[in-house]
Amino acid sequence: METTTSTSAAQIIDKSQLLTHWLGHRKVTRRTLEAFPEKELFEFSIGGMRTFAQLMKEMLSMGAPTAIGLATDKWEALDEEKPELTTKADLLASWDKSTDLIEKYWDQITLEKFQEKIVAFGQYEGTGYSTLFYIIDNEIHHRAQGFVYLRALGITPPNFWEQY
Amino acid sequence: METTTSTSAAQIIDKSQLLTHWLGHRKVTRRTLEAFPEKELFEFSIGGMRTFAQLMKEMLSMGAPTAIGLATDKWEALDEEKPELTTKADLLASWDKSTDLIEKYWDQITLEKFQEKIVAFGQYEGTGYSTLFYIIDNEIHHRAQGFVYLRALGITPPNFWEQY
Repeated sequence: METTTSTSAAQIIDKSQLLTHWLGHRKVTRRTLEAFPEKELFEFSIGGMRTFAQLMKEMLSMGAPTAIGLATDKWEALDEEKPELTTKADLLASWDKSTDLIEKYWDQITLEKFQEKIVAFGQYEGTGYSTLFYIIDNEIHHRAQGFVYLRALGITPPNFWEQY
Repeated sequence: METTTSTSAAQIIDKSQLLTHWLGHRKVTRRTLEAFPEKELFEFSIGGMRTFAQLMKEMLSMGAPTAIGLATDKWEALDEEKPELTTKADLLASWDKSTDLIEKYWDQITLEKFQEKIVAFGQYEGTGYSTLFYIIDNEIHHRAQGFVYLRALGITPPNFWEQY
């Protein structure tokens, strides 16, 4: 086997790039939340789906707790109810607080953690990477549903590709 | 610097895992396509958005060409029109052909390619990984819009988390 240094070994994506990728998506999601009118955020839905406020609460229950779980091995149970968040301003503030926590805990996540077997939120078996990829994918998925809600309301959503 | 072997160096996700991740999403997208009634696939939309058939054609223009581009450095121009695909069966067959091409070319993509600067489709500057992550994210995004279309049509979409 070829020997090389661990810092220069070829890899798909490094830890810093993955954080940038995640935070880029979070910026688009924040803009999507901002684009909703207050009333429709909590009331509008299509086909019996959840409101965008409810979808945001699910995302809030996953994002920062995943960073903290990967960093500390302490996983909260999923809390998607969050009855204390009753306004768009509440959701935006909670989103920003979550982003701060993700940035704070990111450095404490070891590179090895991404390949370790874990039980996320005390119930989902996977690896570190599969858990984080899942919650990013879940954010993209629910945000896209928000894009359709916005279009149905005659509002132009933010640009998907502007992840900065 | 610590020396180690390139095969055992810690990394976020390895190449085989990334292929599994991508193909898992493609299975969910295929089930989403299958769930559409023929007529609504080509005619239904919400808020002036594209039909799911048009969104599928965009995905078809990106998936296999990205695998081929990363493997060979030859990038086709994006072709989202695909007027020859006029039925659900056509789209499913084209999707399966694309999946075969992705699996075929995957082995030819070098690990180093993911960190190389590339110009995807002759126009999008990025790295190998950023390009591939973008097209997977784009698939998740547009498929989620299809989920809303299905819900609006009273049809239960496939499970997002069943990526096998």
